[in-house]
Amino acid sequence: MLKRFLSSLTTVLLPAALFAQQNIGQKTEAVLSPEVNPDCTVTFRLYAPKAHKVAVIGDWENGVAPLTEGEGGVWEYTTAPLPSELYTYRFYVDGLIGLDPGNPFTLRDVGTTFSYFYVGGDKASYYQVQDVPHGSVEQLWYHSGATGKDRRLSVYLPAAYDGKKKFPVLYLLHGSGGDETAWLELGKTARIMDNLIARGEAVPMIVVMPNGNIGAQAAPGETPANLAFRPVMSNQIPSNYKNGTYEASFGEIVSFIDGRYKTVRNRQSRAVAGLSMGGFHSLYISLNHPDLFSWTGLFSAGLVPQFTSDLDVYSSREAKLKAYEKKGCNLFWIAIGKEDFLYEVNKDFRGELDSIGFPYEYHESSRGHLWCNWRQYMLLFVPKLFK
Amino acid sequence: MLKRFLSSLTTVLLPAALFAQQNIGQKTEAVLSPEVNPDCTVTFRLYAPKAHKVAVIGDWENGVAPLTEGEGGVWEYTTAPLPSELYTYRFYVDGLIGLDPGNPFTLRDVGTTFSYFYVGGDKASYYQVQDVPHGSVEQLWYHSGATGKDRRLSVYLPAAYDGKKKFPVLYLLHGSGGDETAWLELGKTARIMDNLIARGEAVPMIVVMPNGNIGAQAAPGETPANLAFRPVMSNQIPSNYKNGTYEASFGEIVSFIDGRYKTVRNRQSRAVAGLSMGGFHSLYISLNHPDLFSWTGLFSAGLVPQFTSDLDVYSSREAKLKAYEKKGCNLFWIAIGKEDFLYEVNKDFRGELDSIGFPYEYHESSRGHLWCNWRQYMLLFVPKLFK
Repeated sequence: MLKRFLSSLTTVLLPAALFAQQNIGQKTEAVLSPEVNPDCTVTFRLYAPKAHKVAVIGDWENGVAPLTEGEGGVWEYTTAPLPSELYTYRFYVDGLIGLDPGNPFTLRDVGTTFSYFYVGGDKASYYQVQDVPHGSVEQLWYHSGATGKDRRLSVYLPAAYDGKKKFPVLYLLHGSGGDETAWLELGKTARIMDNLIARGEAVPMIVVMPNGNIGAQAAPGETPANLAFRPVMSNQIPSNYKNGTYEASFGEIVSFIDGRYKTVRNRQSRAVAGLSMGGFHSLYISLNHPDLFSWTGLFSAGLVPQFTSDLDVYSSREAKLKAYEKKGCNLFWIAIGKEDFLYEVNKDFRGELDSIGFPYEYHESSRGHLWCNWRQYMLLFVPKLFK
Repeated sequence: MLKRFLSSLTTVLLPAALFAQQNIGQKTEAVLSPEVNPDCTVTFRLYAPKAHKVAVIGDWENGVAPLTEGEGGVWEYTTAPLPSELYTYRFYVDGLIGLDPGNPFTLRDVGTTFSYFYVGGDKASYYQVQDVPHGSVEQLWYHSGATGKDRRLSVYLPAAYDGKKKFPVLYLLHGSGGDETAWLELGKTARIMDNLIARGEAVPMIVVMPNGNIGAQAAPGETPANLAFRPVMSNQIPSNYKNGTYEASFGEIVSFIDGRYKTVRNRQSRAVAGLSMGGFHSLYISLNHPDLFSWTGLFSAGLVPQFTSDLDVYSSREAKLKAYEKKGCNLFWIAIGKEDFLYEVNKDFRGELDSIGFPYEYHESSRGHLWCNWRQYMLLFVPKLFK
């Protein structure tokens, strides 16, 4: 019976047999999926003659929809026209959810791997590789005295970086569940920077993307715990979550970067910004290190209602805001989506800033706590820096 | 009906609803999979109460096997004990093949994404991140005069690289269907180098991983064609396949690397090695640039039986071998698996070397044209270099 089972498996799926000759496993998909049509609708197809129920679950608006079975066991669905963006999705088939087998391109967000595509033209043209001068991307390790560990971070160097000229630095922080790869992979930071700089919309700068999970050495799979350390939300990583260590010791990352790269070493030439938990980090890094930073960006910031703490790093927020303003804050930029679950707490925070007359810029977008918003905030925030 | 469908979908799969709050989509899998057991057997589990037939398709020996349905709709299978290695696999469910939803770790090989795991201890300990000094990894672009295009390559710099001391360089070439990310992702090159160097088994060196598809600028998804350029075997990429351009112009990559990094700039301190198509490339790069290289590695080399060509770069093989020997070849290392489909053509090539008395070292492994072999060849080859 096993023999018959394996025989039927081999018949159905030739590529399995090609495992013995790994690198030549040529893939020929029966159907084209996804197909981004000229009118910006997107057609999904899945060959699944035995399936009873098939759906697409995507991160565009109204992104959950059933596919309809057509001839020859091919299921299909076409969206309404979608705005230019990068979209992620998976297929639901009879109780299981997985990748689109017709699409080789994937992204991991926290613990889940998604298929993705672009609807091109407008915003997505910043996320795509264009024929412009390209910066380089590095992943390297620094010794963290605060944790006694070697930790990994990612760095974008602009195309003009030649080891002689000095550049300003944006420190860009990920959210809960993210790591030092999140802004590069999901945020498409290197492409956004290449394209903003090439179009003359942003000044050339270095972008540093550290790991904000102070209890972890690097991204899941990239630490000495290897695959035993699985991607989870940051509050599930043992030790040091919101104990102030990351914010208090952030100067050691700045020192490492200033020691390794040609940077402009003053507060006028340093920005810190982050999404969700990284927005929380960016706020307290700015407030505790006004000597290091003068530009701050909070993207859907993970602020905590009535947050109180005995820790120095989180205390005296009002006094620290006033000190930051006095020292000189070039930009304090807040952005959030109308549907974000953090909308109210961010509104309260703006009220706090208003009550003490602290100047800031505010951008309110549509939708919620989504990577499309964070990429779009980059297109608005980065052009304002270091000018 | 649509409403009822969507309602049932939401009930079954809560994470779908969390798309509106992307970064906080917490994943809680019902079952643990894969589980690497203390005796080096591996247990796979899949919650699929509606499935009729479930199997695992893995790249270990006898890697195709059915899962058996147990209580509560959980299917399960346990392998025999497996040797220490990195293994890739997918699940077959009623005619569809996809990732293990319990495993967040994936690797792309050509156009297919696989789940993967380690059986630790021996060889896999070199592929895993250990608590040793870590080198850095860079992805950057150089201008190729030969193609008139900017092209991307990957570079590993050893932990000791400080911008002052000079290091020898290994140029490491991927196979057909691969790109400048293949040796890093599937080959785990950075970890292998970190661990070989930390254990004192290899001298610190720079490793350069260019893109051997001379008609392509970078990996699929990383070129100006963006996702329109899908991962395929190299002979399906239009223009320039085996027209000699890559091998003839390889000096421009060496010049770029020597200009950007602190390298020891002589043939004694340069090696070129590659797998499959990259073995073919390494052979002809060595033979046409004996002034640049004195160490050569052919891993499951994609040699072509009775290969003839009018191109200078592929002609006069015997004379060029003799010239390489005369100039001084420190190591000419050939490795292949007993079951490799290229075994015979490699045997013929060794016969050709024997007939002219060209000295080489030969390693014959078990199994076929597989990444496990190419990683294992690295553990044997790299320690021989630059000594």
